[in-house]
Amino acid sequence: MKAVRIAVQAAVTLAVVAGAQAATMKPLPPKPSVGDIVKESKPADWRALDPENTLYMDLPLGRVVIELAPTFAPNHAANIKALARENYFDGLVILRSQDNFVVQWGDPDEKNPKQPKKAKMTLKGEFTVPLKNDTQFTRLKDVDGYAPQVGHSNGFPVGRDPKTGETWLAHCYAMVGVGRDADADSGGGTALYVVTGQAPRQLDRNITVVGRVVSGMPLLSTVPRGPAPMGFFDKPEMQVPIKAFRVAADVPEAERSKFEVMRTDSATFQKVVEAQRNRGGPWTKVAAGHVDLCNAPIPVREQK
Amino acid sequence: MKAVRIAVQAAVTLAVVAGAQAATMKPLPPKPSVGDIVKESKPADWRALDPENTLYMDLPLGRVVIELAPTFAPNHAANIKALARENYFDGLVILRSQDNFVVQWGDPDEKNPKQPKKAKMTLKGEFTVPLKNDTQFTRLKDVDGYAPQVGHSNGFPVGRDPKTGETWLAHCYAMVGVGRDADADSGGGTALYVVTGQAPRQLDRNITVVGRVVSGMPLLSTVPRGPAPMGFFDKPEMQVPIKAFRVAADVPEAERSKFEVMRTDSATFQKVVEAQRNRGGPWTKVAAGHVDLCNAPIPVREQK
Repeated sequence: MKAVRIAVQAAVTLAVVAGAQAATMKPLPPKPSVGDIVKESKPADWRALDPENTLYMDLPLGRVVIELAPTFAPNHAANIKALARENYFDGLVILRSQDNFVVQWGDPDEKNPKQPKKAKMTLKGEFTVPLKNDTQFTRLKDVDGYAPQVGHSNGFPVGRDPKTGETWLAHCYAMVGVGRDADADSGGGTALYVVTGQAPRQLDRNITVVGRVVSGMPLLSTVPRGPAPMGFFDKPEMQVPIKAFRVAADVPEAERSKFEVMRTDSATFQKVVEAQRNRGGPWTKVAAGHVDLCNAPIPVREQK
Repeated sequence: MKAVRIAVQAAVTLAVVAGAQAATMKPLPPKPSVGDIVKESKPADWRALDPENTLYMDLPLGRVVIELAPTFAPNHAANIKALARENYFDGLVILRSQDNFVVQWGDPDEKNPKQPKKAKMTLKGEFTVPLKNDTQFTRLKDVDGYAPQVGHSNGFPVGRDPKTGETWLAHCYAMVGVGRDADADSGGGTALYVVTGQAPRQLDRNITVVGRVVSGMPLLSTVPRGPAPMGFFDKPEMQVPIKAFRVAADVPEAERSKFEVMRTDSATFQKVVEAQRNRGGPWTKVAAGHVDLCNAPIPVREQK
């Protein structure tokens, strides 16, 4: 039982010297950071956003760019594009900002909401999809409390359960979901929200998640919090107007934002994740040895 | 091998019906929410903040209330109080806001920073303390990737490692830490930060954490993000001035904020955590069956 004895001794020693702990520990050797690995990446490590699956939400202070994930919510992704193409969101507003949770937009007139012309108001929920629909999964080796397996698929954080044969988009920071009422099939995309706080993973498999904000999060995360329950705004002047909400493919080439997302099935992305999981010195004194799904960076860059 | 076969069959069935999954599942019975349990709590489930361990940071838009955790960082907590008592922070500013990470305050003059009169500029890092120092730990049963054990101690989220005999405050949303340079002992409390994004748990055991914002987070989380690297502000007009930074005990009784924090060693807190871990219907369709340390609510209320 030597291992146990050594462990106990170590505990006693550390308890006595704690406080001086960092000073007496062997410094971590320096190693490339996430930023270093991104800098050293090759063009093949990146993919450009597909304009047909990219949305631009233009706010007074700038543009929010959303990448849709049709693999995980095909009907909702199509319906949100249909809504954008009939200018459904233009002139609607950000109407909710709840601290450490979400920012939401849509029609503030709850009693008499704007009706889509051709797009649907509600759709059957797409909370999970069959595993076989997702052919691009790269698993994280790290433990997760909310899902038997976690990882990334084509630039999106996902959970999956081999026992039920399901996979789903995870509620990490910047993920975009579809608001709904108590009925599972009561959402359709006319009310959308983005995660602005600690990942509310308890929502996973309970709501349709449709994509991720790849640029413009600071425009959403800093919207002053609403004073009404759940962060809703109780005065019209708190609302942030949506100037335009368009599918990128419908925007003239010269006005498009050119973003690339690192391929999450690349070896370079694995290096990025490892750089976050075990940081080098000299600033870091103790490497975490773990990375949570929602702490793994998914690098994005703009082609200028 | 019946269990395995049933699991495989279930997977095939679910793969076929996925999409209709939520509709065919048995609805979750309703149960009390976190809010319901807080409402039904007894006075003994709460403790008032100790004015000697409470800080008020008055900003132009309102007050931020910070509870110090002297059990976990005794020297830093004492030094920050000493800084407050010599009015060190009054007239200094919020100088950094990095999206999905932290907001930081102190002296923006990095080359020639304000010197404390009696308080210390630097202290030995208090990244962890001996387990025996913490007599109020209540363990969460949920798995955690960053620490062998996690839970709460006197209203603060903590990690602990029985093998090394150490415990530490965890970097959850609203936790307050002490900025430092590469040297472990280069911080002292003149530069403080608060977590405003996804819990950066990789910082745990690498930096001194001193407390938690119990009121006023929206004043910090919505500070516009800084354009310079790491979210620093590159123009003085971006800075948010600190009007006053005081120990609550030094503030006239009539001007004090009266907050109470739920006792995390109470049975009621266990109910709060369970309500978050496994939500009831009808809105929730699938209970998470897990709660991450930084997703467990630590209820706070104001005595009016």
